[in-house]
Amino acid sequence: MEMSTVTESTEPRIPVFLDCDTGIDDALALGYLLATPTVALVGVGSVHGNLDAPGGAENTLRLLEMTGHDDIPVAVGASDPLVGSFFGGAVRVHGEDGVGGTRETVLPATSASVADVDAVDLLLRLSCEHEGQLRILAVGPLTNLALALRRDPGIVDRVAEVTVMGGAAMVPGNITPVAEANIGHDPEAAQEVLSASWPVTLVPLDTTMVNTFETTDIESLQHSSTPVVAAIGQMLDYYADFYQGVFGRRCCALHDPLAAAIAVGEVELIRAPRVPVEVDTTTGPGRGQTVCDLRHQRAAGSEGVDVDGANVRVVLQSADGFPQVLRQRLLSL
Amino acid sequence: MEMSTVTESTEPRIPVFLDCDTGIDDALALGYLLATPTVALVGVGSVHGNLDAPGGAENTLRLLEMTGHDDIPVAVGASDPLVGSFFGGAVRVHGEDGVGGTRETVLPATSASVADVDAVDLLLRLSCEHEGQLRILAVGPLTNLALALRRDPGIVDRVAEVTVMGGAAMVPGNITPVAEANIGHDPEAAQEVLSASWPVTLVPLDTTMVNTFETTDIESLQHSSTPVVAAIGQMLDYYADFYQGVFGRRCCALHDPLAAAIAVGEVELIRAPRVPVEVDTTTGPGRGQTVCDLRHQRAAGSEGVDVDGANVRVVLQSADGFPQVLRQRLLSL
Repeated sequence: MEMSTVTESTEPRIPVFLDCDTGIDDALALGYLLATPTVALVGVGSVHGNLDAPGGAENTLRLLEMTGHDDIPVAVGASDPLVGSFFGGAVRVHGEDGVGGTRETVLPATSASVADVDAVDLLLRLSCEHEGQLRILAVGPLTNLALALRRDPGIVDRVAEVTVMGGAAMVPGNITPVAEANIGHDPEAAQEVLSASWPVTLVPLDTTMVNTFETTDIESLQHSSTPVVAAIGQMLDYYADFYQGVFGRRCCALHDPLAAAIAVGEVELIRAPRVPVEVDTTTGPGRGQTVCDLRHQRAAGSEGVDVDGANVRVVLQSADGFPQVLRQRLLSL
Repeated sequence: MEMSTVTESTEPRIPVFLDCDTGIDDALALGYLLATPTVALVGVGSVHGNLDAPGGAENTLRLLEMTGHDDIPVAVGASDPLVGSFFGGAVRVHGEDGVGGTRETVLPATSASVADVDAVDLLLRLSCEHEGQLRILAVGPLTNLALALRRDPGIVDRVAEVTVMGGAAMVPGNITPVAEANIGHDPEAAQEVLSASWPVTLVPLDTTMVNTFETTDIESLQHSSTPVVAAIGQMLDYYADFYQGVFGRRCCALHDPLAAAIAVGEVELIRAPRVPVEVDTTTGPGRGQTVCDLRHQRAAGSEGVDVDGANVRVVLQSADGFPQVLRQRLLSL
């Protein structure tokens, strides 16, 4: 096990709260944040999604211990969406254990335990401790964030930015023809989070599906002598099995780590207009869709244009090169 | 006034029923069909949409007389959608009179009158007269077609193909962020038409917005010595004024004529998979959206792939060159 690297810098590190459902690409995002010297991961919440909320927290604890970061608090959050109940997890994508069957083989059990507060209270506390500085990165359903808004509406003024991996603007969804999983598994929460008066950046499938790890990337992680890196590489085998059917080639989409890099400003945004976004909370065929008003973008040209009354910055295109950055960053863990 | 040209051919002409809301691009579709020797336009229905249904029929009658085709029956159809009432017309796009202010200046009044049956009965009658051969081209809201299905469900077996200009699959809508006008102005009718057991081809904004007349095309029509051609050219000035704001350049989208050319098989389809399509009939933000299931298309490559259980062929891409064909065809009127 390697110890975490203390980076010398005159710049204060960016405090990040990660809300996630760990999850294979959540593990990549966690690894990215831990390996990025400009970032201070100050807490992690878990939420229903790729697997149940306690299971996601367990995966997070094990990964943190493997990287020497068992000082970072992990709190369990919402087990169910605001409306209805947990759908059962994305077993085909992430496996029963959320990490492609690696939990009991290559992620050592840990004596570390979850925080004695829930993820919502942890987030609220951190928003006070890091008032004006905290960036929230949400890569699962938005239930915890919605509950935080309900429990303490003042949080909107204490958070610097909310970055959400979720939605689909001009590309198909991944759980229905138009709904992406994180939004679609709690549309009511997503609508509350996207319409609250804090700055929200949405990183939808439009962008994440064109940032992929290819076979060579996966293999290079698998060949690492660092156990956590090799473990992540092993998870990616399961993930690539699923994505073979989506892409027609063996690769995997870097949803959550891309959102992480955008949250901390490491990836340049090529086309990211601020536009009105409404989440479909009906029970019709559009349920869970992020309805983004992009009607003004055709005339605006390649950079896009902000729209009056916009509530969300939607990342339609980001700069090339992130997969290479991510691979190097993970190899440095 | 020119007389219609009788074309010598050993092939029987394709009988087409046009259901429309004339409308500037409806006028282009009408002109295209009349100028295409392989086509026999056997009847025209009018429907609420770009303007009120009687107004659309009046525009059609005048255009037919100008082209020497006053023998083609024109029938007035539904004044209102199945649910709710007529929204008032697309004045900014097509003008108060539907034809960019040209009705009383360059479209001579006609003594011809509309049929003594409504558009639904005309369509039903023609479906019997041309049983197994009739192609329906619908370029307005689908109310008349839905009413025909309700009045005589057997029509589904008498029609060769239904081609609909409408919807938006992977591009923004034009009346809401996700709804296109023809579908959005009667979603309930659209859902009935798209789910009926006749072969439906949908020509959505994805394809029609990349087939445009540019300034030079418009001017060449305006300079024609044939009154109906010059009149169509004049209408296009109004249309281009609107589209300046959409495209950022003076041009116009060839929605209805492109659908006409696809209906009669003149335009090659590059990417037109048969996929499940459901119209959003909720009152949520997705109302009027054509929810197309394109999740299988990424792996399928450039041609797309038909999906089991599909009800609609969706034209996502058609061959280049149609605007040039259309311009020449209109100049031949």
